[in-house]
Amino acid sequence: MTSDGSVLITGIGTLITNSPELGDGPLGLLHDAAMVFRDGVVEWVGPAARVPDGAAHHRYDVDGRAVLPGFVDSHAHLVFGGERAEEFAARMTGEPYGAGGIRTTIAATRGASDDQLDANMARLVREALAAGSTTIECKSGYGQDIDTEMRSLRVAGRHTGETTLLAAHVTPPEYTGRTDDYVEMVCERMIPDCAPHAKWIDVFCETGAFDRDQSEAVLRAGIDAGLTARVHGNQLGPGPGVQLAVELGAASVDHVTHTTADDVEALAASSTVATLLPTADFCTRSSRYPDARAMLDAGVTVALAADCNPGTSYTTSIPLCIALAVREMHMSPDEAVWAATAGGAAALQRNDIGRLTVGSRADAIALDAPSHIHLAYRPGVPLVREVWKNGAPVPARH
Amino acid sequence: MTSDGSVLITGIGTLITNSPELGDGPLGLLHDAAMVFRDGVVEWVGPAARVPDGAAHHRYDVDGRAVLPGFVDSHAHLVFGGERAEEFAARMTGEPYGAGGIRTTIAATRGASDDQLDANMARLVREALAAGSTTIECKSGYGQDIDTEMRSLRVAGRHTGETTLLAAHVTPPEYTGRTDDYVEMVCERMIPDCAPHAKWIDVFCETGAFDRDQSEAVLRAGIDAGLTARVHGNQLGPGPGVQLAVELGAASVDHVTHTTADDVEALAASSTVATLLPTADFCTRSSRYPDARAMLDAGVTVALAADCNPGTSYTTSIPLCIALAVREMHMSPDEAVWAATAGGAAALQRNDIGRLTVGSRADAIALDAPSHIHLAYRPGVPLVREVWKNGAPVPARH
Ligand SMILES: [Zn+2]
Ligand SMILES: [Zn+2]
Repeated sequence: MTSDGSVLITGIGTLITNSPELGDGPLGLLHDAAMVFRDGVVEWVGPAARVPDGAAHHRYDVDGRAVLPGFVDSHAHLVFGGERAEEFAARMTGEPYGAGGIRTTIAATRGASDDQLDANMARLVREALAAGSTTIECKSGYGQDIDTEMRSLRVAGRHTGETTLLAAHVTPPEYTGRTDDYVEMVCERMIPDCAPHAKWIDVFCETGAFDRDQSEAVLRAGIDAGLTARVHGNQLGPGPGVQLAVELGAASVDHVTHTTADDVEALAASSTVATLLPTADFCTRSSRYPDARAMLDAGVTVALAADCNPGTSYTTSIPLCIALAVREMHMSPDEAVWAATAGGAAALQRNDIGRLTVGSRADAIALDAPSHIHLAYRPGVPLVREVWKNGAPVPARH
Repeated sequence: MTSDGSVLITGIGTLITNSPELGDGPLGLLHDAAMVFRDGVVEWVGPAARVPDGAAHHRYDVDGRAVLPGFVDSHAHLVFGGERAEEFAARMTGEPYGAGGIRTTIAATRGASDDQLDANMARLVREALAAGSTTIECKSGYGQDIDTEMRSLRVAGRHTGETTLLAAHVTPPEYTGRTDDYVEMVCERMIPDCAPHAKWIDVFCETGAFDRDQSEAVLRAGIDAGLTARVHGNQLGPGPGVQLAVELGAASVDHVTHTTADDVEALAASSTVATLLPTADFCTRSSRYPDARAMLDAGVTVALAADCNPGTSYTTSIPLCIALAVREMHMSPDEAVWAATAGGAAALQRNDIGRLTVGSRADAIALDAPSHIHLAYRPGVPLVREVWKNGAPVPARH
């Protein structure tokens, strides 16, 4: 083993590999461990006492801290113009707020230049990376016209490979009262034009947004154009989103705050991941959080994501998602950390991330804490101290 | 105006002065503002266009960001040994956990050296400061014997002037079943011995801890020894804590999660501050949060603090307290930010901190955001970008 360009992480108090064959439990926990990264992937992982001969070129001693795979944030809306702080304050205090809502963001996004959109997204990706998210998905959806959706996907594609055409997010103003016409335009023109710039097709299947038939039409058009489906569903109330996602073999159905026993059963029998977005429930003061326990106990694959967007969850903090998952959804710290790493990877149908085993991407974080439990035990504290992306250290936040 | 040693902060998009005579509303908001610090205090504050002649020695342009007084965290337990992550995980998942509780921390604290206690506190004070808390109170209370309480106060006093003798936190093991004997020892020996090292006397007045008579005895002994009272009260259920605090003229009664209309009325008619600790309610999965709206609407002075301790609220994050106050307690962002700054100062009976007006301490923070609303609008995101303490910039976290 030569040392050129390779990195040795040593002094790992607790290492989460997410590979049960490497260590204890579903997290594949190792204590007193070390890892070697080379060419952007994990070359070796094991007990610190058995690091292979031939020192690595760079060496990091993390001094007994916990190391885990970088978070995989599989649900984010990062291409947008403007912010909605005043609207948030009004909503929280129950005061009327004249304008507002997603249409504010659509107007601001349409009016923004590519450079403005790019700078805003770059800022949020930097912020997310500093908080440990080494992979982040990004949706379009604040254009809802062909030009802006295409521009949004191009901007997103500069920062992530996980680009999602959220073609049907809200009926845009020029189609008010004509949602079917909008869906027709999306299926016949927007999707064919935009598909080359996206990996995923997504739809907001919800009462007041797009109904089951409209959602299905959009998803099928996306699938026909070579994209894979993901669904926003069951956020604001019960609905057909979960069942539709399962029927179409969607990679993930996201939010799932309101589910029936049938929904949970359908998910458990499928390969569709349930992606829970607790910061959205937090920021909107939702009357409930998703029933994570029912899903986990039924065997559903659960992911956690931050749903970063300027309206209903303006955060990039996966650690806060984990703290909320434990506090509000009775997930164990182990389950929450798995969901934010391997679960996110499953939601993106990736097996090269979300785990730290030989051959996986060398995306990892070291906490300023001896264990991953601290992510829930120490809410609000920025515990992510070191981040490695593709085997290279990411510059610190400041 | 000469420039030696002075600091000019300019480009302030939104400045919270907490001085209604300087700006809009209770927060005394100014836009496009600037400040000059000299010799650790605020020398000048006003519109950026009217900065006095004579440039300051150091100049910081905060580029349109929000600047506010440093947070005043008036309730913290920072002198302790050990941690209780496994116990936290067990509690959250409903699993039995044999040992645990505060007695674990008492044993670890008694067994720790002064240097160990000091290093642990220093770490937490650094963490709190990086998160914007420029003042932090610190209680003893994990010794519950004279020697360890005294050592705890001495360690605390190296890091803060706001030192509190929490003489009656829990009946220590050697007094099991003899709480009255413990209280007698506290009043006759511990308080006289320890008072010179403390500013405040505190007690945990709660069913299962110290009852009204025991609490009153401890507080009166503290007052006789020259200390001012503060009270832990009404955390786990209704109780006499609030009424006792008001009767004894305590500076603050803290937690107040369970209050009656009489309690709120008594607080409103008093000078006792109600210090709310929402991260404790969060971390213990309390069935409720304090009724902040009732208190604010009745005219009670409300503070927010983080209650950092290894058992029930292991966080230093005042921004998370603010986000929870807005989400869970229906405080407006303005009220929450006031409570975390001027409110904390009131709870410590300080008028030199918690505001930014001529003559106040030059303790301030700049957010990575255009407004203070973002502290609630962007939960979990480490928004505190710059911190000045006594007029000097604090080194960044990394
Ligand atoms: Zn979304
Ligand atoms: Zn306390």
